[in-house]
Amino acid sequence: MNQSNQVLIGKKPLMNYVVACLTIFNQKENEVTLRARGNSISKAVDVAEMLRRTFIKDLNVKSITIGSEELERLEGGTTNVSIIEVNLRKK
Amino acid sequence: MNQSNQVLIGKKPLMNYVVACLTIFNQKENEVTLRARGNSISKAVDVAEMLRRTFIKDLNVKSITIGSEELERLEGGTTNVSIIEVNLRKK
Repeated sequence: MNQSNQVLIGKKPLMNYVVACLTIFNQKENEVTLRARGNSISKAVDVAEMLRRTFIKDLNVKSITIGSEELERLEGGTTNVSIIEVNLRKK
Repeated sequence: MNQSNQVLIGKKPLMNYVVACLTIFNQKENEVTLRARGNSISKAVDVAEMLRRTFIKDLNVKSITIGSEELERLEGGTTNVSIIEVNLRKK
């Protein structure tokens, strides 16, 4: 899998990310990884479920991993933010 | 695993759920399942990461599953909401 198969989930509307994933799958790729952190984690799950339920019937959740990343605070010091990676694969 | 090992993540502060999990683990249970839906999904991941990083060093994420649930709308009809289940196990 190359880097272009990763979709970073952020503040944009849900459907932007769904379309981004569909575009990758339409380029004959069969794998996409959704990556999100903090409050966007819920949106990553929504994107995966919408793809699976509505758009690509033979889409499987291959793996889900969670973890933490250290961020530098503006006021100094560091804080931890949770991350999720959802790996989707077409059968 | 019995039903009491499930912690439903909702609108309360993060630490409430962390304490709920710690309480279960202290009752000699070695497994807890976090369950959340919609926007609380991010919080479920935060709870898992905080337990793993800060409180229980030998805690593993055994499995993570995502899915959808149908909800009835107040104005009629149904809508789908994403859910996550994070299964945590002490080594």
